[in-house]
Amino acid sequence: MSETLSGIGWTTATLADFVGGTLRGNAALPIRGIGRIEDASPDQATFFADQRYAKFLSATAAGCILVAPAHADMVPADKTAIIVDEPYRAFVKVMRAVFPTMRMQPGLRHASASIDTTASIDDTASVGPGCVIGARCRIGANVQLFANVVVYDDVLIGDDTAIHANVTLAAGTSVGQRCIIHAGAVVGSDGFGYIERPDGSFEKIPQVGTVVVGNDVEIGANTTIDRAAVGTTSIADGVKLDNLVHIAHGVSVGPNTAIAAQAGISGSARIGARNRIAGQVGMIGHIAIADDVIIHAQSGVSKAITTPGHYFGSPAKEHRTTLRIEAALRNLPDLLRDFQELQRKVETMAKNLDGDADH
Amino acid sequence: MSETLSGIGWTTATLADFVGGTLRGNAALPIRGIGRIEDASPDQATFFADQRYAKFLSATAAGCILVAPAHADMVPADKTAIIVDEPYRAFVKVMRAVFPTMRMQPGLRHASASIDTTASIDDTASVGPGCVIGARCRIGANVQLFANVVVYDDVLIGDDTAIHANVTLAAGTSVGQRCIIHAGAVVGSDGFGYIERPDGSFEKIPQVGTVVVGNDVEIGANTTIDRAAVGTTSIADGVKLDNLVHIAHGVSVGPNTAIAAQAGISGSARIGARNRIAGQVGMIGHIAIADDVIIHAQSGVSKAITTPGHYFGSPAKEHRTTLRIEAALRNLPDLLRDFQELQRKVETMAKNLDGDADH
Amino acid sequence: MSETLSGIGWTTATLADFVGGTLRGNAALPIRGIGRIEDASPDQATFFADQRYAKFLSATAAGCILVAPAHADMVPADKTAIIVDEPYRAFVKVMRAVFPTMRMQPGLRHASASIDTTASIDDTASVGPGCVIGARCRIGANVQLFANVVVYDDVLIGDDTAIHANVTLAAGTSVGQRCIIHAGAVVGSDGFGYIERPDGSFEKIPQVGTVVVGNDVEIGANTTIDRAAVGTTSIADGVKLDNLVHIAHGVSVGPNTAIAAQAGISGSARIGARNRIAGQVGMIGHIAIADDVIIHAQSGVSKAITTPGHYFGSPAKEHRTTLRIEAALRNLPDLLRDFQELQRKVETMAKNLDGDADH
Repeated sequence: MSETLSGIGWTTATLADFVGGTLRGNAALPIRGIGRIEDASPDQATFFADQRYAKFLSATAAGCILVAPAHADMVPADKTAIIVDEPYRAFVKVMRAVFPTMRMQPGLRHASASIDTTASIDDTASVGPGCVIGARCRIGANVQLFANVVVYDDVLIGDDTAIHANVTLAAGTSVGQRCIIHAGAVVGSDGFGYIERPDGSFEKIPQVGTVVVGNDVEIGANTTIDRAAVGTTSIADGVKLDNLVHIAHGVSVGPNTAIAAQAGISGSARIGARNRIAGQVGMIGHIAIADDVIIHAQSGVSKAITTPGHYFGSPAKEHRTTLRIEAALRNLPDLLRDFQELQRKVETMAKNLDGDADH
Repeated sequence: MSETLSGIGWTTATLADFVGGTLRGNAALPIRGIGRIEDASPDQATFFADQRYAKFLSATAAGCILVAPAHADMVPADKTAIIVDEPYRAFVKVMRAVFPTMRMQPGLRHASASIDTTASIDDTASVGPGCVIGARCRIGANVQLFANVVVYDDVLIGDDTAIHANVTLAAGTSVGQRCIIHAGAVVGSDGFGYIERPDGSFEKIPQVGTVVVGNDVEIGANTTIDRAAVGTTSIADGVKLDNLVHIAHGVSVGPNTAIAAQAGISGSARIGARNRIAGQVGMIGHIAIADDVIIHAQSGVSKAITTPGHYFGSPAKEHRTTLRIEAALRNLPDLLRDFQELQRKVETMAKNLDGDADH
Repeated sequence: MSETLSGIGWTTATLADFVGGTLRGNAALPIRGIGRIEDASPDQATFFADQRYAKFLSATAAGCILVAPAHADMVPADKTAIIVDEPYRAFVKVMRAVFPTMRMQPGLRHASASIDTTASIDDTASVGPGCVIGARCRIGANVQLFANVVVYDDVLIGDDTAIHANVTLAAGTSVGQRCIIHAGAVVGSDGFGYIERPDGSFEKIPQVGTVVVGNDVEIGANTTIDRAAVGTTSIADGVKLDNLVHIAHGVSVGPNTAIAAQAGISGSARIGARNRIAGQVGMIGHIAIADDVIIHAQSGVSKAITTPGHYFGSPAKEHRTTLRIEAALRNLPDLLRDFQELQRKVETMAKNLDGDADH
């Protein structure tokens, strides 16, 4: 986890070469790590890409700054810059080069794991301490189950998927390839479905469907995805879910949609492709959302959205409509006062006119 | 988990007979499973009960449709229908018949479980791999602890209760009969209580109360219920809590109340019977809510509610009040514009009148 | 967990003496426990400090009531009172005296725990059943890991810290002294960071930073704290986080700040000291919040806050501004109706004036 470029004699010159950038300044500075512009040290590289961080350009102690051609002039002349078309992407390339991804020992079957004899686990998959694997599970190549992961019966896990500590995959869940499921997430818990009896008590509706998670999906820590009552809850390829997200039974989330922390999607909602759903958004059930919809934070989506675009507010409306209302709201207390003044003025005028008419 | 009516030669005729319905159409169709109206296959039964799904009545490929007498005419004549008073309830009856509930091996004491010698566990209860059971616990008949469940000291669990993977029951917690606690839930964690010191730092108030969960309660995945500071946090019989719900210390939730995902109830709130609290609702502490109150999604309840009915908004008001305000809000930007126009008009009239008076 | 003052012959007189208060009433009542004013029994002590509970003063069955001098006259004459300057603090002192904190057996290394041989664990630390401790971890004196806690590689845990069941500490996480981490919490999960590809799919940005948790921090059940993309996510000394809170990557939370349940803080937000952030608050990323800021429940903080004080609403504004708007909102439907009436009145006046002018 140490953020040092250990064992490699990086300099500003070799770094510029590695990212295909142009060096401006001192080519011989040793670079031993990376850091954020606000707290990088003189032997670390950083990057600048977001105007909100412009104030740190002169203050930063970083040894060199990756920067786009358009912003190169903003870097003080006494700092060493590496000018590169996409500085953040270049920075990520450096991160990948120097921080190898944590990898469990291939083929590990920890002695404390409980593996059902009918489970089929690829030889290259790793099963950490305390993991539990149920009957008839099929687990692919290079899968990693870190520690205390519980996999109920009849679960499928595709190749190269990593599942972190204390995750639960309930019976019949299917997870695709190259997924990452973070600690504490629960996939396949019962949906919240009841029939109300005349006395107000509840009869549980059996939740006999499943959850199908596609390829390249990432699921955040302590996020919950319920199984469908009937059929499947479906998380398509490339979906990214942040922490503490709730996906109810029967929901389908379209490919490459991202849902930020603490958002909640009610039952049987159908979300299109490439949606961007911000934190703490809520969505009622049984509605459809188009592709390419962006929903801003804390919005409450109470009806279908058929047109791509930005939506905001609770209830959610077109983003600019909510902004207009919000601006008007700030004027509302003044409006109330001005209105009462105008009422009095008109009243006075009316009296005067009556008085005139009496002449 | 396969959704097939395996091993039973069901036909549309036998299905109609099983649910006590009247068949209209082909009596000899083989039915091998159930499905949702939007994606059922020709060998599956489905049901129709919600007008929002009317558009699927002609498109569905389902072999037969359970439908109420009042809606029977909506089913195209070329489809096979089973006409039955409560089609959803009939469908659930079929679900129950063909999907037996998952059941652990009775009497299981998995070798990897850690059970305190002073715990008293009924012979028929099942303790799965990695479970931990503390001192002086008493665990009833047919209880199931699936895997990696942690039960601290002095916990009571009533007969026929099922507790899923990675659940934590803290010391002194009491859970009734026939409850279901889903994966990752935490019951009995410390409440959030501090005394502020003059320097702004906090002194922790010991949380020495407990949590008492009644009978027939269901607790969702990753939901948290805190122990009381003093006395009990009380979840009455028949309560249903969805995923990621937060119940703070000292709260009491009345019988047959349902709370949807991501709702949060602050300390010492007292919620009546048969409340329906929707997703992402927040409630401040130390207030009482009457019986039969319905609180709509994302509402913020900031004071006591003494009258049954629908409430909505943040802060929560009577539902129709919030809807009236919401409708007015949409007109607010126009109102601001029209008001300024009216101001100018009145101004002009006033000047003209002054002018007249000058004659 | 029993709330009895077991084994000690407490009376109202000895209790008054213990808290340094003045007894009024019966000095010889046996006191065997403590309770809340609304449900304490005759052999229990309670306290009164919150006006909302005044109605219970005459109804309570408690054997004696700790009460401040200013409120002593509110206690009916037939009840026994102990008059003390800070009754709640005195009550907490009693709680501490009679409820010893649960403590694991020092030095425990449970046989079912998996401890890497390179981990360094103080002799006095306790490692419960099913715990997993990774390579090169360093665990201090009197640390308690209750059960099924998963500690990845390179984690530091300071002296006297208690970590409850099913918690996950990801690789490289650092936790200070005297912290309490409640069940199911996840510290150090990957931040939610991607670069969007031209086709709308996501490329994961490696999250190579860490989480540093200070001393005397409490982290609630199922709360999640993400590691920084680069650098550290920082939780300062004395911070208290309630249940189901989300802290995104790169956030810093200042000393003695408290964040209530289900609040969410987006990436790289910098929160000052002694903030009080209520339940379900959301905060966007990359902003700074001053010291001594109080943010009310369900607020959405969408920009920096530079001045101490109370903030409320979504988007969050100064508390009194939001209250003024909220009050005005309740009048908005009436305003719309009155405005239309005034429009008609002015219209009529204008016509009459035109009529006059025609004379």
